[in-house]
Amino acid sequence: MSELRKDPIVDRWVIIAAERGRRPHEFEHPPEETAAGAACPLCEGNERMTPPEIWALRNVGAPNTPGWQVRVVPNKFPALRVEGEAHRRGLGIFDLMDGVGAHEVIIETPDHEWRMGDGPTEMVDRVLRAYQARLIDLYRDRRLRYCVIFRNFGPDAGASLSHPHSQIIAVPVVPRRVKSKLSAARDYFQRKERCIFCDVMAQELALGDRIVLENDYFVAFTPFASRFPFELAIYPRQHSHDFATLDEKGRLALADVLRRCLAYLRPALWQPSYNYILNVAPNPVPRPGKPDYWTTLHLDYHWHLEILPRVTRLAGFEWGTGFYINSVSPEDAARFLRDAMADEADGTASGSAEVSAPGGGS
Amino acid sequence: MSELRKDPIVDRWVIIAAERGRRPHEFEHPPEETAAGAACPLCEGNERMTPPEIWALRNVGAPNTPGWQVRVVPNKFPALRVEGEAHRRGLGIFDLMDGVGAHEVIIETPDHEWRMGDGPTEMVDRVLRAYQARLIDLYRDRRLRYCVIFRNFGPDAGASLSHPHSQIIAVPVVPRRVKSKLSAARDYFQRKERCIFCDVMAQELALGDRIVLENDYFVAFTPFASRFPFELAIYPRQHSHDFATLDEKGRLALADVLRRCLAYLRPALWQPSYNYILNVAPNPVPRPGKPDYWTTLHLDYHWHLEILPRVTRLAGFEWGTGFYINSVSPEDAARFLRDAMADEADGTASGSAEVSAPGGGS
Repeated sequence: MSELRKDPIVDRWVIIAAERGRRPHEFEHPPEETAAGAACPLCEGNERMTPPEIWALRNVGAPNTPGWQVRVVPNKFPALRVEGEAHRRGLGIFDLMDGVGAHEVIIETPDHEWRMGDGPTEMVDRVLRAYQARLIDLYRDRRLRYCVIFRNFGPDAGASLSHPHSQIIAVPVVPRRVKSKLSAARDYFQRKERCIFCDVMAQELALGDRIVLENDYFVAFTPFASRFPFELAIYPRQHSHDFATLDEKGRLALADVLRRCLAYLRPALWQPSYNYILNVAPNPVPRPGKPDYWTTLHLDYHWHLEILPRVTRLAGFEWGTGFYINSVSPEDAARFLRDAMADEADGTASGSAEVSAPGGGS
Repeated sequence: MSELRKDPIVDRWVIIAAERGRRPHEFEHPPEETAAGAACPLCEGNERMTPPEIWALRNVGAPNTPGWQVRVVPNKFPALRVEGEAHRRGLGIFDLMDGVGAHEVIIETPDHEWRMGDGPTEMVDRVLRAYQARLIDLYRDRRLRYCVIFRNFGPDAGASLSHPHSQIIAVPVVPRRVKSKLSAARDYFQRKERCIFCDVMAQELALGDRIVLENDYFVAFTPFASRFPFELAIYPRQHSHDFATLDEKGRLALADVLRRCLAYLRPALWQPSYNYILNVAPNPVPRPGKPDYWTTLHLDYHWHLEILPRVTRLAGFEWGTGFYINSVSPEDAARFLRDAMADEADGTASGSAEVSAPGGGS
């Protein structure tokens, strides 16, 4: 059983998941890529190599057999387990609890070689449907306070399997970074009666030099204070705290923007590793004695997606301060991505053969 | 001129240093290691390849000639520049200022191949003397609110030159991570009239299972809520907010503990890349209209050193939440390091030939 431990000085939780762990000497080599076929536990036909599926989109077939389009399974080596209670407790000055939560893998397609940037939009949309379905289901469990939905692509982004997949980790506390966004949104709303995310998006649209692409539903831009070269944010135009309520039209529009952002990053950065994170609101769990902060629906939050290409390594300065040095201005990055997009539209992009034509939306 | 930009939602500053930047395609390849000799700008005899020195410990010779033991020079490609004022200003909803600050390189030895873990203690002590001298001098400049002193070792830690060196970056704002430690120390002191760092150290000593090594002046341990495998913290036993006031005996004792920690990490993790960060107090700059938080000397802070081996890659979960998954328990890591230490004392360590005998202290 893993443990959640809280840093006694800063408000940061850590999962100590030693049972997933490797012996120290095993850190010498990065995990190897799995080839398609017999060895890949996420390929079609190998359904017996994963724990039984939780959710699937299927054309045909019974659960845990071939015939699926998207398949969600528990992680075979979970950081957190769904059984039991958290048993919050102290150890002298320290705080800890049992590693209760959920850790699921969204297998995005049977096709081992698929790249999300290649589309079609409908395949990306199916992945988003899986996120919505799992988010709604996991938030039925009142022990789970927050769901992190993310995708690691490439070895520099921490991906250990190359078959296309995303992950969901549901945790029994609201993480620090989420709390700081929630309280910023709350403070701003109380002061201005407006959403801070809406205002940031309006400012970005007014200035224009960091906008990468937009359609009727979404705006993609390189944030003013980007931490990393080619960092991207995708905000829904319409204020909404709840990703799960995004309807089919909106979901297809997000699938289109997300796919195109990933496609344009590829010629810009030569097949970068990246992480993307879907920033959703916490589970609105009422707790005795806790005032509105915990009991509200977080209506002043605005869900969004962050794409973080992994092209530089963090160094001591960043670790020591939480202060970042970014050597590509977000304005340059946005211009570069817009140029890649224009080249694609002209059919002159060097890598255009592998980038499918833009889908609907816009 | 670089810019400091503040994220409008979370309280995070970013240095946009586009003039240091590379074109996007240049991210394809990691920086190459420089060999010793003619090509290395930090080697003895190549003093003309760096900007003029700011400080040096010398046996013989005029500034910017051979004969030095430690040499401090401005970074040739600085993230921040020392000239001018910060010009704090707004751009609609955004906040920014000019990239005023300092960025210095501490060349730790003329010996290109030196490993800090090899010692002798006196060589490590000279590096610490350079840190003290530069910290005192930089804090004379009231524009500089905080000094980050750090060492990146190995390509996975973001080091771009292999010649032994540390860096100092002085910034015109107190960084977010430092602020959160300062306010934790302040809150705890107001509640308990004790230092939170002292209490954490006392708790670690009482429990004992995460202690790696100690001497009369310092305690090294793997923190209860370690973010990374083999993360280490070194705290001074005696409460002190000011690293610059550490006397010669204390400095030698720190040099001894630091050297041994780095030496024992080597067999444990097979030559890991690492970052270490010296966490000092901010420059106590009085500002009109700001209450005691800014004007005090931060007497309730407790300086310390963090060593972060870079053996795993951060993934979307960590980026999305500021919540870490650590697959080696700090108790296992401490036991492993203590065993490596005992092997060294017995002369049975596999890598002992390259690890010098422990120096003074203890």
